[in-house]
Amino acid sequence: MSGKHIDTTKSNEEFWKELGIDIEKHDELMKVLPEVFENVYLTQKNRPKSIAYFDKFIADIHGARPKEVVERKNNGDKVIGAFCAYFPEEIVHASGAVPLILCGGADFPVADAEKVLPRNTCPLIKSSFGFRTSRTCPYFLSADLLVGETTCGGKKKMYELLNEYTPTYTLHLPHKKDDVEARKLWLNEVKLFKNKVEELTGNKITKDRLNDSIIRVNRKREVLQELYDTRKVNPLPISGKDVLLVMQLAFFDEFDRFVEKTGELVKELKGRIKRGEGIAPKDTPRILISGTPMTIPNWKLHDIIEKSGAVVVAEESCTGMRYFSDLVDENSVSTNAQLKNLAERYLHINCACFTPNTERPEDVVRLAKEYNADGVVYYVLQFCHEFNIEFAKVERALKEEGIPVIKIETDYSQSDTGQLKTRLETFIEILRASKPKIHTGKHLTSVKHPASVEIA
Amino acid sequence: MSGKHIDTTKSNEEFWKELGIDIEKHDELMKVLPEVFENVYLTQKNRPKSIAYFDKFIADIHGARPKEVVERKNNGDKVIGAFCAYFPEEIVHASGAVPLILCGGADFPVADAEKVLPRNTCPLIKSSFGFRTSRTCPYFLSADLLVGETTCGGKKKMYELLNEYTPTYTLHLPHKKDDVEARKLWLNEVKLFKNKVEELTGNKITKDRLNDSIIRVNRKREVLQELYDTRKVNPLPISGKDVLLVMQLAFFDEFDRFVEKTGELVKELKGRIKRGEGIAPKDTPRILISGTPMTIPNWKLHDIIEKSGAVVVAEESCTGMRYFSDLVDENSVSTNAQLKNLAERYLHINCACFTPNTERPEDVVRLAKEYNADGVVYYVLQFCHEFNIEFAKVERALKEEGIPVIKIETDYSQSDTGQLKTRLETFIEILRASKPKIHTGKHLTSVKHPASVEIA
Repeated sequence: MSGKHIDTTKSNEEFWKELGIDIEKHDELMKVLPEVFENVYLTQKNRPKSIAYFDKFIADIHGARPKEVVERKNNGDKVIGAFCAYFPEEIVHASGAVPLILCGGADFPVADAEKVLPRNTCPLIKSSFGFRTSRTCPYFLSADLLVGETTCGGKKKMYELLNEYTPTYTLHLPHKKDDVEARKLWLNEVKLFKNKVEELTGNKITKDRLNDSIIRVNRKREVLQELYDTRKVNPLPISGKDVLLVMQLAFFDEFDRFVEKTGELVKELKGRIKRGEGIAPKDTPRILISGTPMTIPNWKLHDIIEKSGAVVVAEESCTGMRYFSDLVDENSVSTNAQLKNLAERYLHINCACFTPNTERPEDVVRLAKEYNADGVVYYVLQFCHEFNIEFAKVERALKEEGIPVIKIETDYSQSDTGQLKTRLETFIEILRASKPKIHTGKHLTSVKHPASVEIA
Repeated sequence: MSGKHIDTTKSNEEFWKELGIDIEKHDELMKVLPEVFENVYLTQKNRPKSIAYFDKFIADIHGARPKEVVERKNNGDKVIGAFCAYFPEEIVHASGAVPLILCGGADFPVADAEKVLPRNTCPLIKSSFGFRTSRTCPYFLSADLLVGETTCGGKKKMYELLNEYTPTYTLHLPHKKDDVEARKLWLNEVKLFKNKVEELTGNKITKDRLNDSIIRVNRKREVLQELYDTRKVNPLPISGKDVLLVMQLAFFDEFDRFVEKTGELVKELKGRIKRGEGIAPKDTPRILISGTPMTIPNWKLHDIIEKSGAVVVAEESCTGMRYFSDLVDENSVSTNAQLKNLAERYLHINCACFTPNTERPEDVVRLAKEYNADGVVYYVLQFCHEFNIEFAKVERALKEEGIPVIKIETDYSQSDTGQLKTRLETFIEILRASKPKIHTGKHLTSVKHPASVEIA
């Protein structure tokens, strides 16, 4: 649609047509989603009221927000889509363009992708590619530029093919973060990306604009950390599923509104904590999920866990803590210093793509303790060699601390749901058996871990 | 065995015991190999006489050569093992250490590897890891240092685990080769590797020693190119299988002897060419294999193809042309210039691990023409995302030139041999049907390609 004015006041269907959506296929997708959402989300009891904003967002996810994005385009702004937590969105904001982290969590477009990509490729890669080639995602079709990155072999080679549909720019993330040359290379990549964005938008990214953008993205990361802090408490004031939804929308929503709405949610949750209200009894086993990301509408693992008598208390994931941990220094004296601080911040993300990656097993142990998790579910998207092999080290680190862990490798299909449910129910039963029964009004103290934290 | 003196005059079994081989498991492996070799190799007719040296090498592959390597160790030399064509062996030679490219082509140790590595990992990765953990490879057990590289996610993460068995050093190969910072990073890696090898061996790598080593490795690459040149001729003077064997041993054998013996083979083949002698009739379909490497004893694909009425005329592979194409400049004026030339030479290898990698589809087309191939078999080791996804571009390039191609994705097991045979027979039948029948004594001219080349 690049450059074309599109009327956003018309019906969704008219809007989609103008955008170039394959209406017939898209209708099939839209038929499935509400039912899935209802079954996963609306069956939950005692949800916080402020989650209504996010429910509403998802209910019209291909309508209202894409229209806003296209309005920005009608006004001359560019749209830049990406796929990964290494995408330095501050630079995009500072240029006046709209950053989006794109679809890739649905099984629906996988069949389309498999016309080109091998079947035994990670479902996230197939889903992203398929959403573009099947023309069923308005976000993809709004993008003027897609930004890939070299986090894994599958993605890096997929981006070469994606470039044949929409111009795709691949950030060169090094394999190591601890050597001087690798840091130089990455800093240079961040600079080149700034140049690329300036060239695309025609806007100069000044020190002031970048500083403003750094501060605003920091606020987004802070409010997400506050949201996660409420999950350290027992009983848990919000389900894992609901937080996952907020996290997923953090990549799509308009920036300031998202911070405001998440702030309202945090406020409500703090009230719940004060009143000792939870979404599950205090002796409910608490799970940390660690591993590969989950993008909309990939709610499969959370749903199974939370329907099997446990709660998810945190995600060591790129659709979790890896997205918002670490802020960027707000006091840089020059654009160069800003870019250096940005580059450094992004290199702190402990993705399994790095070698070695000793910080990640340490992180998982630390987070399990911080969030008072009774056990860890290690989540691997099928055929992700990096996270799959790194499990050996994470498992060892957890075992040394006596923290139970189970590895779940799966895709986006529903074919293994029954089997996963059985395995996870058993795991949760073991966790429950090793927990002391709660009879008092006091906070739960688990067998191995420090006492629960109360924040207010 | 690091540092320990081992008697190499004893029987193989005594030698293996001292080296730390798991004799019982190793016996199982040794029981299978001779039969496989006989079935694959010794059933061939009209082999060149000079191949006898290589047959003999393989017949005692865990005996004679490992004993030589250990004798070098007894004399104080170090042994450095590696897994990839990016391993700058010139540096190792120049230090006085023994470079080896290690085992990883057998199904045998895969079960051991799968105790730690995920099943859906590339067989090469599992086999390499399993050979070390199962203690069934004397080369692995001789190594003082293993050298990995970041060519793919699976290998890079496997090396972290391998490091728990034998010290493993991972070369940081960048994802891109066309940008200045990536070249700087790689040059720095080559320098750091030189330092590492100097530290390990205690020997200074002087300009003269490195120059000598560059010249010698160039000679090895040249003799392999000469060997490949004989395959451009029709009728083909040597089977693809036999050349594969020579290539595989290029990574294990003593340097100067290998050059001498390969030279003898080339001389014999040139005689055959002069006399018009071939190992198959002139109208036999000619296949270029393109894709992932094949290490000992992975002869599966060549065996099926050559038993199905076709011949393999070249391998666009790291156990093929990617190993010896491009020499290193022999006239560097300083060690820095030598290292720069070395680094540049290695970056010319067009592995699918690079993004973009536009040179590789071009290479495959060029080689198919140069070697008068009637078709290309694109070979992918299971779960190798890089080569698997890159097929889309290679296939397109070949189709544009009217060159037939088939993709074969497989592992080291024999479970799919029947199915592969059927698919390849059909492919070869199609190639044969599109070839003009040869009734004259003249060289075959295929339908689409330039006339065959005769070298003498």
